[in-house]
Amino acid sequence: MLSSAVVVLAVAATAALSSPVTNRVDDAPRECGLPDALRQEIAGYRPTVERIVAAVTQGPAKGKVWKELAQFVDKFGPRLSGTEVLERSIDHVLGKMRSFGLDNVHGEPVEVVHWDRGLEEAEMLEPRPCKLPILGLGGSVGTPPGGITAQVVAVESFDELKQVANQARGKVLVFAQKYESYGKTVPYRQYAAVEGAKVGAVATLVSSITPFSISTLHTGWQDYSDNVTKIPTASITKEDAEMFLRMYRRGDKVVVKIKMGGRMLDPVMSRNSVGEVLGKTEPEKVVIVSGHMDSWDVGTGAMDDGGGAFISWYSLALIKMLNLPQPRRTIRAVLWTGEEEGLIGAFAYAKAHKNELNNFNLLMESDEGTFTPSGLEFKGSSQAQCIMQNILKLLDSINGTTLQPSDDVGSDIMVWSKTDVPLASLRNDNDQYFWFHHSAGDRMTVEQSDALDKSTALWAAVAYVVADLSVDIPKNNEV
Amino acid sequence: MLSSAVVVLAVAATAALSSPVTNRVDDAPRECGLPDALRQEIAGYRPTVERIVAAVTQGPAKGKVWKELAQFVDKFGPRLSGTEVLERSIDHVLGKMRSFGLDNVHGEPVEVVHWDRGLEEAEMLEPRPCKLPILGLGGSVGTPPGGITAQVVAVESFDELKQVANQARGKVLVFAQKYESYGKTVPYRQYAAVEGAKVGAVATLVSSITPFSISTLHTGWQDYSDNVTKIPTASITKEDAEMFLRMYRRGDKVVVKIKMGGRMLDPVMSRNSVGEVLGKTEPEKVVIVSGHMDSWDVGTGAMDDGGGAFISWYSLALIKMLNLPQPRRTIRAVLWTGEEEGLIGAFAYAKAHKNELNNFNLLMESDEGTFTPSGLEFKGSSQAQCIMQNILKLLDSINGTTLQPSDDVGSDIMVWSKTDVPLASLRNDNDQYFWFHHSAGDRMTVEQSDALDKSTALWAAVAYVVADLSVDIPKNNEV
Repeated sequence: MLSSAVVVLAVAATAALSSPVTNRVDDAPRECGLPDALRQEIAGYRPTVERIVAAVTQGPAKGKVWKELAQFVDKFGPRLSGTEVLERSIDHVLGKMRSFGLDNVHGEPVEVVHWDRGLEEAEMLEPRPCKLPILGLGGSVGTPPGGITAQVVAVESFDELKQVANQARGKVLVFAQKYESYGKTVPYRQYAAVEGAKVGAVATLVSSITPFSISTLHTGWQDYSDNVTKIPTASITKEDAEMFLRMYRRGDKVVVKIKMGGRMLDPVMSRNSVGEVLGKTEPEKVVIVSGHMDSWDVGTGAMDDGGGAFISWYSLALIKMLNLPQPRRTIRAVLWTGEEEGLIGAFAYAKAHKNELNNFNLLMESDEGTFTPSGLEFKGSSQAQCIMQNILKLLDSINGTTLQPSDDVGSDIMVWSKTDVPLASLRNDNDQYFWFHHSAGDRMTVEQSDALDKSTALWAAVAYVVADLSVDIPKNNEV
Repeated sequence: MLSSAVVVLAVAATAALSSPVTNRVDDAPRECGLPDALRQEIAGYRPTVERIVAAVTQGPAKGKVWKELAQFVDKFGPRLSGTEVLERSIDHVLGKMRSFGLDNVHGEPVEVVHWDRGLEEAEMLEPRPCKLPILGLGGSVGTPPGGITAQVVAVESFDELKQVANQARGKVLVFAQKYESYGKTVPYRQYAAVEGAKVGAVATLVSSITPFSISTLHTGWQDYSDNVTKIPTASITKEDAEMFLRMYRRGDKVVVKIKMGGRMLDPVMSRNSVGEVLGKTEPEKVVIVSGHMDSWDVGTGAMDDGGGAFISWYSLALIKMLNLPQPRRTIRAVLWTGEEEGLIGAFAYAKAHKNELNNFNLLMESDEGTFTPSGLEFKGSSQAQCIMQNILKLLDSINGTTLQPSDDVGSDIMVWSKTDVPLASLRNDNDQYFWFHHSAGDRMTVEQSDALDKSTALWAAVAYVVADLSVDIPKNNEV
């Protein structure tokens, strides 16, 4: 997940659980004015949904998503935008989609940025010499070849920076902010370099954006500003940030040396990866399931967003495997590229497919973990919510029935947030998501086979029913 | 904490909670046959205990242990046995003990081993090249200067090794054991090199001994055997161990290159650090509170065992600060050296003080975390348990009243486990202890100020009451 996108995770979900829309519709028909015929039509999909759930949680597909994903990350490792390995990993998934008989499998060209961190190393020289683990932030410029050696100024907030602004010139500025929530804390990573440069700092070091650390480094994209000097910027561990703050406040002289080889290379052509289950009667209408193919260059991107990408294409493979009746509309898997550098693939897709907008029936994305799923986060009209709630009722056997209305749904699909296209993302038990996010800990070990199976079941079932339903998901309340 | 010591943590504590000895004694006088006079005598210490608790949890000493410990770890960093920085850190603490007016402050010479890991680096060469984070295990020999390049054989258990023993010759043997409990899993770290060498492996890589990982490396001592070739041995992350196992089982050819500079240097003279609150009427009788000064060379040893060492000496400082009446017996803080390499300081102390054995009234140690305390783990006669339970009742204001009988108490003090000297260790909320143990995550961030205050209160109160009581803690049931 692009960490600079504003993402509301399931933290606030408790409130939603008691809201009318999440009641069982049978118990609260007035809150959810669905015609009886439609309600019965949706209920009629129960045998189909149960086939899907059974196949992937007990049947021949059980454990297969985990196995496919493990083979994939073991083979390719991390897949940073602009690298050749990302393109080979895209070829692999396109090949997989073909091998499972998906329709219209192809890549759609997208130019992505190519940042390379190069060599990175740092040390504390005073008050006691020791290595200083750093992880450059995405897009950071490098240091001069000999590195930067300077004293440290440490602050706990942008507010505190104002008070010590006149001491920061020529210094390495450390941000030791407390973690509140991802959305509230990530601006320190995004804007550290700009705010540091404004007060004359020669580099910035930012406490990793995470609620929990075992001396863990977390990278992520950061934003320079056109009129402000670009200075090198890297993450440090929460542990070191706190240490620098203690030392600085005690009046200790703290000196660090930082070498970073970060540089922007020429843009590279990458691809959004597409495969379909073609619709029978209204093939031009589309339900999209999605995740992103690219990852950061640490860990292997098993979680961010291997899981999301793999439940998406595998949902279509599963529908093909089960020989389900061809749905009314087309189900399309889109695996975005260049997500981490600013939703590049999604923006390109929106542009290339802008004439299809009216045909987008529902856009689904999984980019906040594929832990045990509990339903969907959803942005859409109240009538749309009502239909989706009825569909999720069919997933009671895996406890996937919660519809959580939200205005912040997904990362890539937020590109369509100002349109009236209904958007949904996978609601799952992702309390520890940011413990691993953009770190060396984003590995296969995070992914649980049963959770991937259930996520796939939910994903495939929702996509199939929505694609096959007699009515479109309404874009507003006038159906 | 020396990880190879057999340590039973509070995991099994639930059972103890419902055992008679942990009932409130008032409710169950028959299970705990303490003379009324002694019961009343102990209850009479309530005002004293409440002064201690108030001083450190609300009064002038509040937050001071955390502050002292933070200054200490920030100043010295990790304190590996044999290093000069350990000796300087010992000087610092001896100076602190003097500055707080402790009696008889001194170091007692101990020869410790000096292992140095040197440079360590590794990479996977096949099936795809990438860096391989490793952390050599204590005492490991190095590789030849050019490193070792070999294919990987991976197993999940010593049992599985038997099945593939004939494939391991000339290979790097990976142990990807599952974590069960520390005690059950740590033999893989201890004996990997020996078992690997027996089947002809040229090096061993062992999944870090931890229940939870964010690609975290955990070191620890390991044991060679005299008649078996010494091969290099290092920890890898749980994530990489699992990856190697998957690759090996798929039949992938996996090749790694390992360079390690580990070597044993000449033994070095270190010190156990001692300070006292001298007893008034029976000064030769001693209550010892303890922790260890040395640490591993990663992280800063704030948790293992900075916390234990600091609540120990600070307990005596607190008793001095409060001008409590001089206790009947002597309270002695002993801060062991050379714990991580095999309880070297404790063994030396036992030898040097063997004539004092009858005067050891109670040995206390904190080396399993200083998280929020809940009481003591205790090894002693049932009459001793009864007295200790009555003393812990005085700590109800901080919920420190649980006495958990155990035969495995502490790490250093286990040197006395075959004597009849009563032993106690700090029972605390250390469920995450092994997440940080022997890793770069053993930093000040793990330590919580309030928990250190409460741990100090419990430690000081128990030591003072035991030291001042009219009767010795009985070594058996014939008082």
